[in-house]
Amino acid sequence: MASTKMMHLGAFALASGHHVAGWRLPGAQAGSENLELLKHIAMTAERGKFDLFFLADALNTSPTMHPSMVVRLEPLTLLSVLSTVTSRIGLAATASTTYSEPYNLARLFASLDHLSGGRAAWNIVAGAFPAAAANFSLKEHPEHSERYRIAAEFVEVAKGLWNSWEDDAVVMDKDSGVYVDAAKMHVLDHHGAHFNVKGPLNISRPPQGYPVFIQAGASDTGRDLAASVAEIVFAVLQDLDTAKAFADDLRGRVRKFGRNVDHLKIMPGVCPIVGESEKDARAKLAELGARADAATSLRVLSERMGHDLSAFDLDAPMPQLPPSGMMQGHAVTLAALAARDGLTLRELRDFTSAAMGHRLLLGTPEQIADGLEEWFVAGAADGFNVMPPWFPGALDDFVDHVVPVLQKRGLFRTEYEGTTLRDHLGLPRPAHPAAAVAATNAAE
Amino acid sequence: MASTKMMHLGAFALASGHHVAGWRLPGAQAGSENLELLKHIAMTAERGKFDLFFLADALNTSPTMHPSMVVRLEPLTLLSVLSTVTSRIGLAATASTTYSEPYNLARLFASLDHLSGGRAAWNIVAGAFPAAAANFSLKEHPEHSERYRIAAEFVEVAKGLWNSWEDDAVVMDKDSGVYVDAAKMHVLDHHGAHFNVKGPLNISRPPQGYPVFIQAGASDTGRDLAASVAEIVFAVLQDLDTAKAFADDLRGRVRKFGRNVDHLKIMPGVCPIVGESEKDARAKLAELGARADAATSLRVLSERMGHDLSAFDLDAPMPQLPPSGMMQGHAVTLAALAARDGLTLRELRDFTSAAMGHRLLLGTPEQIADGLEEWFVAGAADGFNVMPPWFPGALDDFVDHVVPVLQKRGLFRTEYEGTTLRDHLGLPRPAHPAAAVAATNAAE
Repeated sequence: MASTKMMHLGAFALASGHHVAGWRLPGAQAGSENLELLKHIAMTAERGKFDLFFLADALNTSPTMHPSMVVRLEPLTLLSVLSTVTSRIGLAATASTTYSEPYNLARLFASLDHLSGGRAAWNIVAGAFPAAAANFSLKEHPEHSERYRIAAEFVEVAKGLWNSWEDDAVVMDKDSGVYVDAAKMHVLDHHGAHFNVKGPLNISRPPQGYPVFIQAGASDTGRDLAASVAEIVFAVLQDLDTAKAFADDLRGRVRKFGRNVDHLKIMPGVCPIVGESEKDARAKLAELGARADAATSLRVLSERMGHDLSAFDLDAPMPQLPPSGMMQGHAVTLAALAARDGLTLRELRDFTSAAMGHRLLLGTPEQIADGLEEWFVAGAADGFNVMPPWFPGALDDFVDHVVPVLQKRGLFRTEYEGTTLRDHLGLPRPAHPAAAVAATNAAE
Repeated sequence: MASTKMMHLGAFALASGHHVAGWRLPGAQAGSENLELLKHIAMTAERGKFDLFFLADALNTSPTMHPSMVVRLEPLTLLSVLSTVTSRIGLAATASTTYSEPYNLARLFASLDHLSGGRAAWNIVAGAFPAAAANFSLKEHPEHSERYRIAAEFVEVAKGLWNSWEDDAVVMDKDSGVYVDAAKMHVLDHHGAHFNVKGPLNISRPPQGYPVFIQAGASDTGRDLAASVAEIVFAVLQDLDTAKAFADDLRGRVRKFGRNVDHLKIMPGVCPIVGESEKDARAKLAELGARADAATSLRVLSERMGHDLSAFDLDAPMPQLPPSGMMQGHAVTLAALAARDGLTLRELRDFTSAAMGHRLLLGTPEQIADGLEEWFVAGAADGFNVMPPWFPGALDDFVDHVVPVLQKRGLFRTEYEGTTLRDHLGLPRPAHPAAAVAATNAAE
């Protein structure tokens, strides 16, 4: 473990670029199904000593969605392949608790953790896009608070399933013929409001105990779920004061749940555009903007706000809309930004097309490093989820030019010190409950 | 494609060995979670020019199950990793239609097919082990015919989802800004007795159109599902006459469904033990038998028969039991074998411990090749699913010694001629329905 506190970095691989027009730049590559590009991204992020590589996900599509999201490889199978071209970087994927079964999902993440030697992370999503319901034989998407109750129970079930076998339960002793030690198997026998899951899981305990838990809930309910279980929190935050307030609020909730605040890493999204000068970086943003499709950009903003904005006047001030229960982190941040700066709908649309409402950092490597350092030193962030507007160039630029500045300032590692994602994050490996009991008994 | 009809071979990777005591042999490696062993198996099967590598699966476990099944890596993530150490061999996995959602499973297999360059196959299982129900919030396992109705609808939904996008729908044209051609997207809008799935799927059409479909149903209902959709059929068959009758029956059903019989490959399981002589091979079987755990062996037989046999007299003739609706292929074959040879329960237990009721082939490489050739030439099998009693030695032996004999006799390929699993099997790539319509219109 690092003795001084270091920044943590994620590479958010929305592989046709976070900017809606990122894939159209001359040097950019298109394709969330482009395996060679995805390998390059993962290997570049590992070369930059990033903590993790992250794949978002959704369970619905439409030709008018953000291009990076229309068609894409399935995250767990893709991360399994990427585990073979990397050896240290964490491998994180979004998966919904509303549209999967705990037994199936617990197996997939346990398997990824085994295959990768302890590098799996799960971004726990309560299922944000209502259109998914129609793909899962449901009449309607469960409402917000019900989705979070399902999510909380789902995570408890998954943890229970990952504890089906103690760490040394699989003996495979040829002489005695004992394959597993049945005394070290635990039947969960969960009976809850949403799930009845007996167990045990048919895979041994993951190398990390549990995959690292990521959460991005911004609502009151979402923050409580994050504070109770998450080890990484992704967030949409635009200004330092709001970010500081968010971090303070979340850390307060973490303490309320009796957890160590050092075991929760707040990593807001940032979209970096590195230039030789600030002017150069701004020119790149303008070049992207000129290529953006207006309808797609408005649709992306509509999804983030949870309201169809196509009937509103583009040149009137951004309309005030009631909360929709969808993606509140984005909706609240974007509404606040529009109010603060007096943005029209058109201006907010163009802003959102760059990184879906996340913070933009433009300028020289030093300027971008300044922007990261400011929030890190102020305690508003433990690290950042880097959202390159296009691939591979914008990530290459960040790794080649910004990371060295952060390293020179002593803010970021120059080498991995451990092998698992928990090692990189300085997170303890959760002990098996039976081992914890045994340790307590031994100490008494 | 091969001009003369060739045998097809699968490597059934139950990686602690098919024999319940396979893992205990001095040279054997244990572990369905042993990635290095699994890589070796896949690479060895590819070296032997096998058509496919196959992973069975279940959604429940117990310490008294067959050792290879107690804990194991999840098949889709594992096959994704194995796609990186192989380039030609098909990658097949069992997945249940009773305990997953079509949208999730269609994505996983489509993703594997993309990641592997067209090598995915799905063994469609209606969910054989009743204990799985308790892991999926169900009061009880649906009964046999209901499971098959669910399976048939599930497969139709999955096929519809794989046709969400025509083959050339993803345009990604930088100049025009067109990412996907919306006119080539198809909304499934399925409303059925068990599923309501709107679509489209958020991944482009798989390289093979659909993954290759495998089925192993042996009951009347199971055979009809196999005849209507399967391209490979796995079967438990002990003698040539029964195998021939099974093949004739299945091919008759295939014709009844209006399909080409050449598009269904019947591949019964065979457990080979290669020796320098038949006596040497028999000695190896005896060595395995001496290491077998009696309770585990009886439990394996109980599972196959669908009845708990622990209360019966081991030395009385095998009791006659009513059909249970579980794994009828195994139950019928084993009951017939016991009746034919007048086996006691103990004898049937020991037989089943070798390869769970599948055909044993013992002897020199030539003798084993004879046993395969006999069934192949008689039309009782289009190929075989090879079930080595232990790993890696028994598969290595088969590849090093039996495959060359088959090749010398002109019964098996000496090199892959194509790159996809459909190529190896001589199966057509299913045209997209819209393309098929366009072709008809053009011909008129």
